[in-house]
Amino acid sequence: MEPYFAKCEEKLGFVPNVLQAYAFDMAKLEAFAAMYNDLMLAPSGLSKLEREMIAVAVSSVNRCYYCLVAHGAAVRQLSGDPKLGEQMVMNYRAARVSKRQRAMLDFAVKLTAEPWNIEEEDRANLRAAGFDHRDIWDIAAVAAFFNMSNRVASATDMRPNLEYHAQAR
Amino acid sequence: MEPYFAKCEEKLGFVPNVLQAYAFDMAKLEAFAAMYNDLMLAPSGLSKLEREMIAVAVSSVNRCYYCLVAHGAAVRQLSGDPKLGEQMVMNYRAARVSKRQRAMLDFAVKLTAEPWNIEEEDRANLRAAGFDHRDIWDIAAVAAFFNMSNRVASATDMRPNLEYHAQAR
Amino acid sequence: MEPYFAKCEEKLGFVPNVLQAYAFDMAKLEAFAAMYNDLMLAPSGLSKLEREMIAVAVSSVNRCYYCLVAHGAAVRQLSGDPKLGEQMVMNYRAARVSKRQRAMLDFAVKLTAEPWNIEEEDRANLRAAGFDHRDIWDIAAVAAFFNMSNRVASATDMRPNLEYHAQAR
Amino acid sequence: MEPYFAKCEEKLGFVPNVLQAYAFDMAKLEAFAAMYNDLMLAPSGLSKLEREMIAVAVSSVNRCYYCLVAHGAAVRQLSGDPKLGEQMVMNYRAARVSKRQRAMLDFAVKLTAEPWNIEEEDRANLRAAGFDHRDIWDIAAVAAFFNMSNRVASATDMRPNLEYHAQAR
Amino acid sequence: MEPYFAKCEEKLGFVPNVLQAYAFDMAKLEAFAAMYNDLMLAPSGLSKLEREMIAVAVSSVNRCYYCLVAHGAAVRQLSGDPKLGEQMVMNYRAARVSKRQRAMLDFAVKLTAEPWNIEEEDRANLRAAGFDHRDIWDIAAVAAFFNMSNRVASATDMRPNLEYHAQAR
Amino acid sequence: MEPYFAKCEEKLGFVPNVLQAYAFDMAKLEAFAAMYNDLMLAPSGLSKLEREMIAVAVSSVNRCYYCLVAHGAAVRQLSGDPKLGEQMVMNYRAARVSKRQRAMLDFAVKLTAEPWNIEEEDRANLRAAGFDHRDIWDIAAVAAFFNMSNRVASATDMRPNLEYHAQAR
Repeated sequence: MEPYFAKCEEKLGFVPNVLQAYAFDMAKLEAFAAMYNDLMLAPSGLSKLEREMIAVAVSSVNRCYYCLVAHGAAVRQLSGDPKLGEQMVMNYRAARVSKRQRAMLDFAVKLTAEPWNIEEEDRANLRAAGFDHRDIWDIAAVAAFFNMSNRVASATDMRPNLEYHAQAR
Repeated sequence: MEPYFAKCEEKLGFVPNVLQAYAFDMAKLEAFAAMYNDLMLAPSGLSKLEREMIAVAVSSVNRCYYCLVAHGAAVRQLSGDPKLGEQMVMNYRAARVSKRQRAMLDFAVKLTAEPWNIEEEDRANLRAAGFDHRDIWDIAAVAAFFNMSNRVASATDMRPNLEYHAQAR
Repeated sequence: MEPYFAKCEEKLGFVPNVLQAYAFDMAKLEAFAAMYNDLMLAPSGLSKLEREMIAVAVSSVNRCYYCLVAHGAAVRQLSGDPKLGEQMVMNYRAARVSKRQRAMLDFAVKLTAEPWNIEEEDRANLRAAGFDHRDIWDIAAVAAFFNMSNRVASATDMRPNLEYHAQAR
Repeated sequence: MEPYFAKCEEKLGFVPNVLQAYAFDMAKLEAFAAMYNDLMLAPSGLSKLEREMIAVAVSSVNRCYYCLVAHGAAVRQLSGDPKLGEQMVMNYRAARVSKRQRAMLDFAVKLTAEPWNIEEEDRANLRAAGFDHRDIWDIAAVAAFFNMSNRVASATDMRPNLEYHAQAR
Repeated sequence: MEPYFAKCEEKLGFVPNVLQAYAFDMAKLEAFAAMYNDLMLAPSGLSKLEREMIAVAVSSVNRCYYCLVAHGAAVRQLSGDPKLGEQMVMNYRAARVSKRQRAMLDFAVKLTAEPWNIEEEDRANLRAAGFDHRDIWDIAAVAAFFNMSNRVASATDMRPNLEYHAQAR
Repeated sequence: MEPYFAKCEEKLGFVPNVLQAYAFDMAKLEAFAAMYNDLMLAPSGLSKLEREMIAVAVSSVNRCYYCLVAHGAAVRQLSGDPKLGEQMVMNYRAARVSKRQRAMLDFAVKLTAEPWNIEEEDRANLRAAGFDHRDIWDIAAVAAFFNMSNRVASATDMRPNLEYHAQAR
């Protein structure tokens, strides 16, 4: 995992604690990193900022301290709008976002809070907002991923690196 | 993905629809399969049956049709006790399981339903039931994984292979 | 109660445990059986299968192990569709049923989960789906009855006869 | 049903609207009345007042206007304490009742709000408060019955007789 | 506080216990009374009865024994309709009120139960029902005030004066 | 209101938008300011920081954007610990606070989320943590006040001054 961590140091200036937490077992670290990198960094109809917005809105439902701190910083950084990061953390409904982004966040938050109620009508709302079949997969997959990582973090009392707090304020 | 699917056919007699769903993109399929195989099949302080019990109890909270059908069948098969599979689907509290397994399921279900309330006391309950630090990681990681896959399945209206229904009844 | 139980043995091959539970007092057994038989077996605008579908969808909200096992079997048997029984148990929204049946199940589930919110609009939805005044009474009465029997079963840890599990799979 | 209604007129001065509602079908009226009379009036380890207290506390969770009005009046009348009727309607936790009665109400309210969570420990709490096996059945059966009748009343917009409002104030 | 209490005695025949509770500190009593008097008694697009209806519907969500008793009496008195007071206490949806008043109560209750979900659409509903900008402030401010006083009362086990129970029945 | 606003400008560098919102009516502004100043600034067994911690933990339950931004800044400033402000916003359970402060926050959050369940045992927990009768009043009164102001802010879409975002990071 040395080269992997070296790359983090170079890019972020530190190794995120979530990776330290997974590093006790290379198979787990690699599977987590592969899935994370594909979801958050690979080409997609969603911008990187939009994926981070989903990450934070989902983490807000689950009140995950680790993810709210780490991905709240990412929203501030990618948007250049500190307010937007705060809104995703506090109540995404307070943000002045496009109809497209609001539909995306509504789906992600409903999928988080009451997945049993997601039906064809919810997917139709996304399509009406301009998302195609593949975009819907990506919205769902990012929201679902943070429902996983929120729970790993909460279950193990994971603590965010202190560096995040002052970033891009 | 051909060889991967061939292995499924050989082992299960069919390719699970969840893999078909991920197969539109090899990076996503590989990341999903790598994480799944590590969590559910690699050596762990939890038996394979226990991991499947967590899968079903979590999916019951989220009322995920796909995962309840597929993993309900796995619990019936691995336990040789059809009743146990039904209980995990319907209400895990109705099952006559060991104190150890009850503690494991209580943690997984609380982590699913109210992750923000998981605290040191919850981990202490697991330790008191005989789980060590690594076991707690595994309980959390399996529960968290199904919180992800329940949501991918619900978001995309994934349908379980019909073969599962009659298995191990 | 001998003749009553004899009739069960003849018809079902066993005496349902719920009747055994009520049998400590003939007045209670008779009142329960009279109400049950009228609701589930007497002529109605709802088919027997539809009444059993309501029974299971309601019992799923209340996560009643006894009723889900016993009436899940009835749905499988009456419909000849094992999948339908599973869907009523797991998440009725996953079933491909007619608009009429979906409206019926939506009403029964809302009446179960948030009876205080049932208003004229909910009854209008049933009428729009083709149900008349008497049908609405029957939907309500069946849903209400299982809200009672779910609670008697849960309160007393009632256990379903093992015969149900493998029926009509 | 004439003689039945005549008896109501004689005893109460009016025919409760719930009976009028069931009277469209003698089989339904008789089954309902038989169950009601057995539960609320037959000999039991619970006093008639205690059974009415359960009726109101359950109806308060379900916010059933009909049952709160009709059975709130019964609590006021049987107790001679108008305040007690109000407390059962508004928040049973505000009432200064015996430990025994508090345990009884706690069980009835939990059975109403989250029946899936009732377990052996809840029954043990009742036994510790002095209730025997048969008493527990009666608490459960009364609470369960009002979970049924609350829903029939709400589903059909049943309206209480005006006579109740001023009774025993 | 003597003159203040004397005025209560003269007007109501007693000093409400909530004022006795605040009277340990004149600054607190004066601030509470100033806010209360402005909200409930000063000129407004809402009638005094409408403000009391909001008070009771909000207190019903919060199940505040003190406020339900005291303000339930006020609704009975101001409306001359004892039934209306009971309906606000038990389930405001059961009341036959105007569309305007229903919209007002829906807003107040949603603001109480899920303030995070109040958005422009909710304010638009109020405007469509005939309320102007200032009226919306008053609905919000009265509902918000009782969300405060419900919690002070519940936190301190405040008990309503016995006089309220029989008033205007 | 000129002198009042001038004092804000002098002390904070700006006039908080909540005061601008109330300023359409001097009676309302004065009552609000009198209550706020007494609760948050007057002598109390709770430090000013503790009162702000309650404000933010309560506002987090209610997801009030205005109050989380404004009082989150106050917690950062008074504590000199930016992390603590974030924790109160995101999930107060993640903060490493004293047992005394944890008991205080637990009470305030329970009083916010389920005021009907506050009973003598909850007050006993506060006393066991070292709070006296008057302290309990202050905890309750501050928590209750923010349950009011959260709702006024949400109902009227109040927006925090931009100055808060970067303060004390």
